[in-house]
Amino acid sequence: MKNFKIALIPGDGIGPEVIAEGVKVLKTIERLNSEISFSFTEFPWGCQYYLENGKMMADDGIEQLKEYDAIYLGAVGYPGVPDTISLRDLLIRIRREFDQYVNCRPVTLLNPSLTPLKDKTEKDIDFLVIRENSEGEYAGAGDWLFKGKPEEVVLQTGVFSRKGTERIIRYAYEEAKKSNRTLTSVSKANALNYSMVFWDEVFEEVGKEYPEVKTYSHLVDAASLYFVVAPERFEVVVTSNLFGDILTDIGAAITGGMGLATGANLNPEKKFPSMFEPVHGSAPDISGQGIANPIAAIWSVSQMMDFFEEEQWGEVILSTIKTILTEKNSITPDLGGTSSTEGLGNRFVELL
Amino acid sequence: MKNFKIALIPGDGIGPEVIAEGVKVLKTIERLNSEISFSFTEFPWGCQYYLENGKMMADDGIEQLKEYDAIYLGAVGYPGVPDTISLRDLLIRIRREFDQYVNCRPVTLLNPSLTPLKDKTEKDIDFLVIRENSEGEYAGAGDWLFKGKPEEVVLQTGVFSRKGTERIIRYAYEEAKKSNRTLTSVSKANALNYSMVFWDEVFEEVGKEYPEVKTYSHLVDAASLYFVVAPERFEVVVTSNLFGDILTDIGAAITGGMGLATGANLNPEKKFPSMFEPVHGSAPDISGQGIANPIAAIWSVSQMMDFFEEEQWGEVILSTIKTILTEKNSITPDLGGTSSTEGLGNRFVELL
Ligand SMILES: CC(C)[C@H](C(=O)O)[C@@H](O)C(=O)O
Ligand SMILES: CC(C)[C@H](C(=O)O)[C@@H](O)C(=O)O
Repeated sequence: MKNFKIALIPGDGIGPEVIAEGVKVLKTIERLNSEISFSFTEFPWGCQYYLENGKMMADDGIEQLKEYDAIYLGAVGYPGVPDTISLRDLLIRIRREFDQYVNCRPVTLLNPSLTPLKDKTEKDIDFLVIRENSEGEYAGAGDWLFKGKPEEVVLQTGVFSRKGTERIIRYAYEEAKKSNRTLTSVSKANALNYSMVFWDEVFEEVGKEYPEVKTYSHLVDAASLYFVVAPERFEVVVTSNLFGDILTDIGAAITGGMGLATGANLNPEKKFPSMFEPVHGSAPDISGQGIANPIAAIWSVSQMMDFFEEEQWGEVILSTIKTILTEKNSITPDLGGTSSTEGLGNRFVELL
Repeated sequence: MKNFKIALIPGDGIGPEVIAEGVKVLKTIERLNSEISFSFTEFPWGCQYYLENGKMMADDGIEQLKEYDAIYLGAVGYPGVPDTISLRDLLIRIRREFDQYVNCRPVTLLNPSLTPLKDKTEKDIDFLVIRENSEGEYAGAGDWLFKGKPEEVVLQTGVFSRKGTERIIRYAYEEAKKSNRTLTSVSKANALNYSMVFWDEVFEEVGKEYPEVKTYSHLVDAASLYFVVAPERFEVVVTSNLFGDILTDIGAAITGGMGLATGANLNPEKKFPSMFEPVHGSAPDISGQGIANPIAAIWSVSQMMDFFEEEQWGEVILSTIKTILTEKNSITPDLGGTSSTEGLGNRFVELL
């Protein structure tokens, strides 16, 4: 009997609505498989909490989360709280403090009707973006000089450490090797003359340990174009924090939008909890209406199961998502369906 | 009689092939309009020059170029010369030294068959990206510490000055105002907690001078997605150097690829020459075969005419591009046609 301790942070806007459906799926797994159980603890952190307490999470929040196997996060951000606070003090803080240095985001077309691209089908769009998730452009380093004066100048410094760069690139090579896929590195050495020159060097260096992995290297601008015109080129992609952020949104665009985009923030050594989240935001404009699409949140549960080495469940969830996407009455309005958030979750559980 | 002095830098790979066709167009204008004349001087700078002389341009290259009204550049970069040298010492150097702080890149669908997007037509894809072109992420500032040691760390610093940020944003507001279009700023303050917070502040501040301009503000990841799923949202877009680089390649992707992407590097005050270039690279794989698509290079001529305040010629060229795109026998293989580079240029001149 395996028990997994899961910390729920439903967060803001549609976060709680979609997480509720993901939890239903987890409870169904528990019911169907007597070898697995979950215990859930909910944390009320987010923008509402901020407005009441002046902080995004409890002072000892990180300490409290430490003992969990996984964090399941809904969405963060709400009008009235600056993004620089809400995101940096909760989402980015957890990624950083728990050294979740790997962000795995599948770019997989689950149903041909979902892509806005002509002539592309499931076989053309099926790859994995591995995004550096702990440093780089997101390091938060910088300076703001001569504020309010004509000579005002603002500096933002990306920090690329040997350790941080090497470990993400090695993780990607391992992933490509074990699944026998090609590996594409995305960088921008022709303009970012320190960080990306270093990135390219490390990519080549670590590559020597993986002669069996076929590699490519693209500039981020070219890669952005190829994601749209030739997604079939990619199998595993490794890139920096900021480039991963941008590229995975293009990935979402070509596979049906943010309602279908999931991300796993991993600490592969399991020294700290990993975090699973739909990539979409809190969507204040539609929150409370019961029409948010919970599929990304459910897909996060699939990623969580993979991480728990319960891959058979990961697969069952993914194939059930494919099935439900063919049922117009079971999907939400953003996908052209008529179902509510809850309706989708209930039907999903039925199918499981 | 107006005479314009044009410095030609055909550059590497397919650069000379496409520039030759652009020059044909310029000479045709001269023939058809007795009020305009051009004088051309060719500079042999680029990677071949580098291999022979150890530098990308003459020592006094910048001095030599100063007296021209415009620089017409083909493409830079070739295997054997690191991109960090070839691009930074020629293309980026000219942009910087001549304070070409505005990079104008149209994202305009010229023919519905060219977009890879379902359900989008010319009326959905017609906007202008105004990219900061002199500083920001491309400042080239940084450091490389503890090289070769485990504690190695590489820093890349984006530099956003008050002057640099304000002038590009003001240019964009002016453009939106005079053409009565909306203005969208693209930034990323939720992660880049110095530079992009500053960017957003300046965007708002300068906006107070333009109450008539309707504005939007998007995160770069969201904007990348919308470029693909909802390009009709955009009219004028203003963004930083790096984000502009990425976004305009997505723009190229949705309008038919790099063979149709042009960019004007402007010094609006005309204190220094401006530079006009197809955005594509030197494409060593197809160079010398006479199959390179010269349309982007010809479109650059249209932008050059606009900048010379000969807008009627700018328009004629653009509408002739639209015409030629409907003639399968007149376009190059990358667009599904059968013409050579030269054949396209000749037919273009005929149509003019
Ligand atoms: C909300 C934001 C800080 C975050 C990021 O930029 O990483 C989001 O866009 C993402 O992709 O997870
Ligand atoms: C070649 C490269 C340095 C350049 C850039 O990044 O600006 C190019 O991609 C462009 O968009 O003009």
